[in-house]
Amino acid sequence: MPNSRKNTGTSVLESNLKSDLENLLKELSNLLIKKDLMLVTAESCTGGLIAASCTEIPGSSQWFDRGYVTYTNQAKHDMLDVPMELIEQHGAVSKEVVEAMALGAFQKSGGKKRIAISVSGIAGPDGGTPEKPVGTVWLGYADEHVVESKLLKLEGERGEIRYKAVIQSLKGVLNL
Amino acid sequence: MPNSRKNTGTSVLESNLKSDLENLLKELSNLLIKKDLMLVTAESCTGGLIAASCTEIPGSSQWFDRGYVTYTNQAKHDMLDVPMELIEQHGAVSKEVVEAMALGAFQKSGGKKRIAISVSGIAGPDGGTPEKPVGTVWLGYADEHVVESKLLKLEGERGEIRYKAVIQSLKGVLNL
Repeated sequence: MPNSRKNTGTSVLESNLKSDLENLLKELSNLLIKKDLMLVTAESCTGGLIAASCTEIPGSSQWFDRGYVTYTNQAKHDMLDVPMELIEQHGAVSKEVVEAMALGAFQKSGGKKRIAISVSGIAGPDGGTPEKPVGTVWLGYADEHVVESKLLKLEGERGEIRYKAVIQSLKGVLNL
Repeated sequence: MPNSRKNTGTSVLESNLKSDLENLLKELSNLLIKKDLMLVTAESCTGGLIAASCTEIPGSSQWFDRGYVTYTNQAKHDMLDVPMELIEQHGAVSKEVVEAMALGAFQKSGGKKRIAISVSGIAGPDGGTPEKPVGTVWLGYADEHVVESKLLKLEGERGEIRYKAVIQSLKGVLNL
């Protein structure tokens, strides 16, 4: 494999993580269908990779409803009603913002019988700071009962960090 | 490679199409930066794969704004203001709906200095009809000047159809 592809998610897809994802999606789809829940995603650093992974499965329309890819701060505000002041105060990669993203996605999608997941992080190679280095990723969850979040410190290159964030985010649904 | 993976987009990513996509994204990002335009996506059958592909590129926040993954009809209506009657009359996979998706994405994102692309199709393996067989994919475009669409008849398995739709959709931006 040429070096130029080393830092893309596609090369990571070729590793063991790929079968992790396939098994995870099987388990997740069974759970969601059984519980009669639809999944909604709100993604920043993963940029649609969670939605793309879910919809790769034939029959995913049974359990995948919609995805908000809110890459810019303005998009987080426009699409998910995340207050701009919240982003300015805490930064887009924060517990506060990722929870607001999940809650926004849950509410905007109609709420009932839905579970919303959100991701905001620094996939790199740029954008890291001493306080929030590359690999800092917040995951959020919202359903009828709770709004939760979790901080990940991931290692690897951009594609790997994005891919690990997808897996951890989906695993989180199984553990809710 | 085990057969069970043969029909996923990840196996297609391993083919020649991968370098096509990498080159295409390089060309596209250069064009959008030069023209000071942000890209907005509205995806149905590709389910976020266009957004995920764009945001895999470091620095994509310079030219990628947001993505609407409108997998269900209700999501097309809620997120992009596509009239439900339009979907009922023409079907979600139609010129009318894909153009309404692109226009909705353009307008919802604030319009100015943006170009919106949309995709609605039948990736299979189910959902095909004699009139609209698996591989029928509509692409839409909207910017300040035009709303356009194009019909593709793609061949292959689910992952391959989705992947080809991503490439054709992005190529369409270069040809606008």
